[in-house]
Amino acid sequence: MSFAELDHLCRRLEALDHAQAMLGVDEAVNMPEGGGEKRADAMSVIASMAHELASAPHIADWIAKAEGEELDGAQRAAVAEFKRSYINRTCLSSEFVGRQVNARLRCEQLWRSLRAKNDWTDFLPSFENIVSLAREEAERRAEVLKLSPYDAMVEQFDPGSRSAEIGRVFADLKTFLKGFIPEALEAQARRRAKHPVKAFDGPFAIEKQKALGLELMKAVGFDFNHGRLDISHHPFCGGVPTDVRMTTRYRTDEFLSSLMGILHETGHGLYEQNLPHDLSHWPSMKARGMAAHESQSLFQEMQLSRRPEFWEFALPKAREILGLDGVTVADMLAHVHRVERGFIRVDADEATYPLHVILRFEIEQELITGKLAAKDVPELWNVKMQDYLGLSTAGNYKDGPMQDVHWPSGAFGYFPSYTLGAMMAAQQWAAVARALPDAPAQIARGDFTGINQWRKEHIWSKASMLSTPEIMRQATGEALNAKYFETHLKERYLD
Amino acid sequence: MSFAELDHLCRRLEALDHAQAMLGVDEAVNMPEGGGEKRADAMSVIASMAHELASAPHIADWIAKAEGEELDGAQRAAVAEFKRSYINRTCLSSEFVGRQVNARLRCEQLWRSLRAKNDWTDFLPSFENIVSLAREEAERRAEVLKLSPYDAMVEQFDPGSRSAEIGRVFADLKTFLKGFIPEALEAQARRRAKHPVKAFDGPFAIEKQKALGLELMKAVGFDFNHGRLDISHHPFCGGVPTDVRMTTRYRTDEFLSSLMGILHETGHGLYEQNLPHDLSHWPSMKARGMAAHESQSLFQEMQLSRRPEFWEFALPKAREILGLDGVTVADMLAHVHRVERGFIRVDADEATYPLHVILRFEIEQELITGKLAAKDVPELWNVKMQDYLGLSTAGNYKDGPMQDVHWPSGAFGYFPSYTLGAMMAAQQWAAVARALPDAPAQIARGDFTGINQWRKEHIWSKASMLSTPEIMRQATGEALNAKYFETHLKERYLD
Repeated sequence: MSFAELDHLCRRLEALDHAQAMLGVDEAVNMPEGGGEKRADAMSVIASMAHELASAPHIADWIAKAEGEELDGAQRAAVAEFKRSYINRTCLSSEFVGRQVNARLRCEQLWRSLRAKNDWTDFLPSFENIVSLAREEAERRAEVLKLSPYDAMVEQFDPGSRSAEIGRVFADLKTFLKGFIPEALEAQARRRAKHPVKAFDGPFAIEKQKALGLELMKAVGFDFNHGRLDISHHPFCGGVPTDVRMTTRYRTDEFLSSLMGILHETGHGLYEQNLPHDLSHWPSMKARGMAAHESQSLFQEMQLSRRPEFWEFALPKAREILGLDGVTVADMLAHVHRVERGFIRVDADEATYPLHVILRFEIEQELITGKLAAKDVPELWNVKMQDYLGLSTAGNYKDGPMQDVHWPSGAFGYFPSYTLGAMMAAQQWAAVARALPDAPAQIARGDFTGINQWRKEHIWSKASMLSTPEIMRQATGEALNAKYFETHLKERYLD
Repeated sequence: MSFAELDHLCRRLEALDHAQAMLGVDEAVNMPEGGGEKRADAMSVIASMAHELASAPHIADWIAKAEGEELDGAQRAAVAEFKRSYINRTCLSSEFVGRQVNARLRCEQLWRSLRAKNDWTDFLPSFENIVSLAREEAERRAEVLKLSPYDAMVEQFDPGSRSAEIGRVFADLKTFLKGFIPEALEAQARRRAKHPVKAFDGPFAIEKQKALGLELMKAVGFDFNHGRLDISHHPFCGGVPTDVRMTTRYRTDEFLSSLMGILHETGHGLYEQNLPHDLSHWPSMKARGMAAHESQSLFQEMQLSRRPEFWEFALPKAREILGLDGVTVADMLAHVHRVERGFIRVDADEATYPLHVILRFEIEQELITGKLAAKDVPELWNVKMQDYLGLSTAGNYKDGPMQDVHWPSGAFGYFPSYTLGAMMAAQQWAAVARALPDAPAQIARGDFTGINQWRKEHIWSKASMLSTPEIMRQATGEALNAKYFETHLKERYLD
């Protein structure tokens, strides 16, 4: 039975993944600094052992034989997804991968030191090398996967999404946002004139913020028998589906950045915790790529937790734990509904964020196809930032193309996931609202059971048995459509 | 270069060991209960991968070739210790190991449920099976290692120690203790009549206990850049030498059990942190077995931290952090110098503890050689308990042979390590006191530099490059000699 051989292999890979996930969590949460060197050694050795195990040439025979065996539907899907990942894993030569790993490490290191100095000139040669290797990678993958070079890169992060479809929804969204953002800013100014934004009285003790975060995590459905919340410098959701490790960081002068971060990560956590248990060691039962994951965190954060009804439920709890005398739901919404043009993607609000992503999507496509040279990125960046957000980045590299680690680390094709996730979340919410007309009232009373049931049935239980677009089609009845996200923004920001 | 092949293998094994160590720590310290099943799966898969890697038949060729290569002293010692561990690892057939693993799991499970019920009868068949497998294991190991069957078992826990020598020092110690304990109890009664034991006023806040524990750990030399202190149900010292993870548990009604436990584990931690860095992925650079490890924790706890001079230094700190108004050094010593006959080994003080061990050492030798049947253990246990400690365990199995997990889990030959460690610690202290006549005064002012320097030079830096008896001979100038431990007890308890 070659299925049995693959099954055994998947158990071994799952054990190594489990170790890597937990070693990563421990490193960020608990490890003293002096443990770092040996930890890095251990994780790199285990990564190469896992890669060796997972890429062995005889696996191709096992897959071919397993495809001919009598399998049930889940097993067939398991073999198909294993094959997809095997092909993606093995289509680059180890000689190439070695060159690329070194180039990426070098470019990331340079990025870390040169970004602060706004030094594009010294960064460029290393970045040109990264772009050239990314083109080579895309060509090679495209050949094997029978996709365009850029699509072959997107496939690494969001399996099944294609740039033709992404381009179509992004074009629609871009047109919309260029008109919408000025309107939203005007509406916001009118609102603020009538109802000024109220500053909350700190300090907010960490223990109290944590208590509130835990209470809201529990209320929205996080299972603390299979996960926990810790502190780390960069918040993340890690661990494994049976033991999800979320982190946050706290400031004492305000509490919302941590709390909204916790709710965002809880969306990732719920997805992981609710993946299917059967065959969970196979890749078919893992979460479906970056866009799907981001759709779950943004559903939790943007669609549920920045909604007025959420604060009807959450504000009394926040007041009980934190004080917040005299704060109203309207005061909370003035904080969680904020539009502001800015240079930095990670600081952007949900309305301006997609323009940051669309800019990168347009530029990286041209980089991969070779239409754009690496050296010309800053100029095109500046032109697009002026066009989309009215901001100039001329000479300001650190707030322009040097702001993200993605490209220096060789991750081309990743950025679209963020905005695809935001659009998917809005479209999923529209489907929830059709299926459960009572959903807003349920949120207002802190009842997330029905909404989570819908998410489990239509998203979480699908794992990686379907492509991202197919999950969306089956869950919402149509292909990804920007209009849901647009409607969401209009309802929230134009009043 | 076969040395290079072995070196590469050792790096892989070190990475898997690192993962296992940290997964184990995380399980005890952080993991939510629901994560347990997948964690157990992952750890068991990784254990079998490590075993497979480390026992591959071609390794025998690498060892043979490496022995013929031009190597420096440390490399030669590395190959020799690798060979020793390879022979020990591979001398049992996998068929046998499989049978034994299952029998051990079964017997441990039974032990867990039947111990509380004092049910020897239902436990016996499974225990008989364990004893029979242990005899088979001992025979097989003896054949390969050219040792007696029992020595071949001791070799698994304390390489180089032999039962003839252990028997010699244990016989000496037993004779001494049977006379000493009544005397010590009388001296204690006289002391208590003059100076009653003072109860400390609790409660003691966990945060304060932790602050005191951390301060004393730091004072005695624990490096917090390469380790930390957490909480777990069963205290331990785990992790890896570059990242030592110690745990304790706190009660709020008293603070000494946790504090002395912390100091004990710190002894283990100092040993790990001060192992050599070069070739640290080879077994020759790991800590030398159970007896050597226990000698370091007991040196820290019994030889240093229960000494009057230690409390001259530590009491002011304890009073500053915990209060303890009016408590004197003499009050502290009344608590940390206590002799009491009891049934339970893990609750025993340093004077009665060796008799618990000697009893087990005598019984397990007869079990392994076949002179004693498993069914006859309770009777012999009772006879010896009456003889050594004046306590009857007739019909009281749970406080008799069912109290420890060691035998149900197949660990025969382990028990001597505890008392060998205690004797080694006393003999090491005598050597320290000869080399540093000022050592007690150094302790009284909280200066452990010189003492740690001696330990590093004579014990820690030797790692596993010598056998335990050879380390002792080189460090103290003679073979293990019970008189140092006896002198230590007389000085401390007979006043």
